[in-house]
Amino acid sequence: MSVSFRARMEQTAKNRKSNIVLALDFPFEKSENRETLFSQAKHTLEAVHPYICAVKFNRHLILPLGTFNDVQKLVEKVHDMKLLTIMDCKVNDIGSTNQTIAEYYYAAGFDALTANPFVGWEEGLKPVFSVARRLQRGVILLVYMSHKGASEGYGQTIFDAETGEKAPQYVSFGKKALKWGADGAVVGATYPEKIREVHKILGEKIPIYSPGIGTQGGAIESALKAGARYLIVGRTITLAENPAETAKKIRDLANQCK
Amino acid sequence: MSVSFRARMEQTAKNRKSNIVLALDFPFEKSENRETLFSQAKHTLEAVHPYICAVKFNRHLILPLGTFNDVQKLVEKVHDMKLLTIMDCKVNDIGSTNQTIAEYYYAAGFDALTANPFVGWEEGLKPVFSVARRLQRGVILLVYMSHKGASEGYGQTIFDAETGEKAPQYVSFGKKALKWGADGAVVGATYPEKIREVHKILGEKIPIYSPGIGTQGGAIESALKAGARYLIVGRTITLAENPAETAKKIRDLANQCK
Repeated sequence: MSVSFRARMEQTAKNRKSNIVLALDFPFEKSENRETLFSQAKHTLEAVHPYICAVKFNRHLILPLGTFNDVQKLVEKVHDMKLLTIMDCKVNDIGSTNQTIAEYYYAAGFDALTANPFVGWEEGLKPVFSVARRLQRGVILLVYMSHKGASEGYGQTIFDAETGEKAPQYVSFGKKALKWGADGAVVGATYPEKIREVHKILGEKIPIYSPGIGTQGGAIESALKAGARYLIVGRTITLAENPAETAKKIRDLANQCK
Repeated sequence: MSVSFRARMEQTAKNRKSNIVLALDFPFEKSENRETLFSQAKHTLEAVHPYICAVKFNRHLILPLGTFNDVQKLVEKVHDMKLLTIMDCKVNDIGSTNQTIAEYYYAAGFDALTANPFVGWEEGLKPVFSVARRLQRGVILLVYMSHKGASEGYGQTIFDAETGEKAPQYVSFGKKALKWGADGAVVGATYPEKIREVHKILGEKIPIYSPGIGTQGGAIESALKAGARYLIVGRTITLAENPAETAKKIRDLANQCK
């Protein structure tokens, strides 16, 4: 692992001819049904892996299955398939806690994690970037999320401390992604005009990961044309009647848009 | 559990003559040492429980021990001690994920969780409040965190969407706490002047939880005088040579300041 996460993502997407990141998410299950979650996740992976370049995990599996129990087994399985893993933990705690979170997720094998730049640098995300650099892992920053309420925070107008002028919050986050050397930036596919704006700031230096395709209403073509590099697709695939067929269709559609 | 979390906290603090919330945090441990974490946490609880009113958990234990494994056992132990439990997960994802996170933590027995108002209401925190109301649990909002970098986000100046005027971010978060009916607001003890400002907004309607005492430099007296209702103390107690003695000393100091 002497190559950066960003470079490994590029190489994997090229090898697999896919820029689709599978979000391996399933709805809340009561305790009596939790055992089925692991096999559901495993079967989805086995069906879908030819059409994706990476797998994104979230608390949908971490909380019921345990980081160092079944989740670590799934992470190993993804690596055996020569795909990468992202932990979408949206880190936003104080520095020492963020560092502990990062150490545990990286120890479980994750190649990258997501973090919220709102928490700031000093005693905030600085320790996360330090751990990531030491272990050659990735940090992907949230720049504009895919849900409605994103306008309240990510879309708010702030008084930029550096320029002394009015600016949208997400523009300030895009600049922080550059300044801090993030390995990726998340911008929701439900807001293609924000992808375009953020892409103007990041250029080709930092790839945009775009969630919200399908179930949340985001469209593949508009996200890619606006500058998204990777598409994150979750429930549209995981809850489909035929996950493999759905994933293949999405991958093909995405490849046609290039 | 037909009484609100807020009322149960008040009653417990009164019964125990303590407004100290223990943050049961321990540093990152490599896999070979992880087994000791559970007994360390258990012993700390056993030593410290007479001097506190609630226990706050974070990823320091969730990630190595597992939510439905050892953490749930600790939560049950805390409840046996007639104390309350808070999961400091700082929820900040899209609504459906936040809902899943809340369902799992509440299913594991937690009485309340923390959430970041930056994520907004629609498809943001609204589903978390819905689950909390249904299950009679609490939601505590982050209003100003205790670390240095907090000034970047929580301390930034925004243009208030409702008034169109300049306002500090934390003032807007304080107003959201009122509007959304939060059960608590977090303001760092390291910023007593922010506690005072937020207390003016919240009055006696929403209690302020103040972390950052001790290790992070916050002082007990200034936090309480500024309007903090509960003090969150972590490493100062958990990493002390004598956790019980330290907790007692902090509890006594806090009670003298009332």
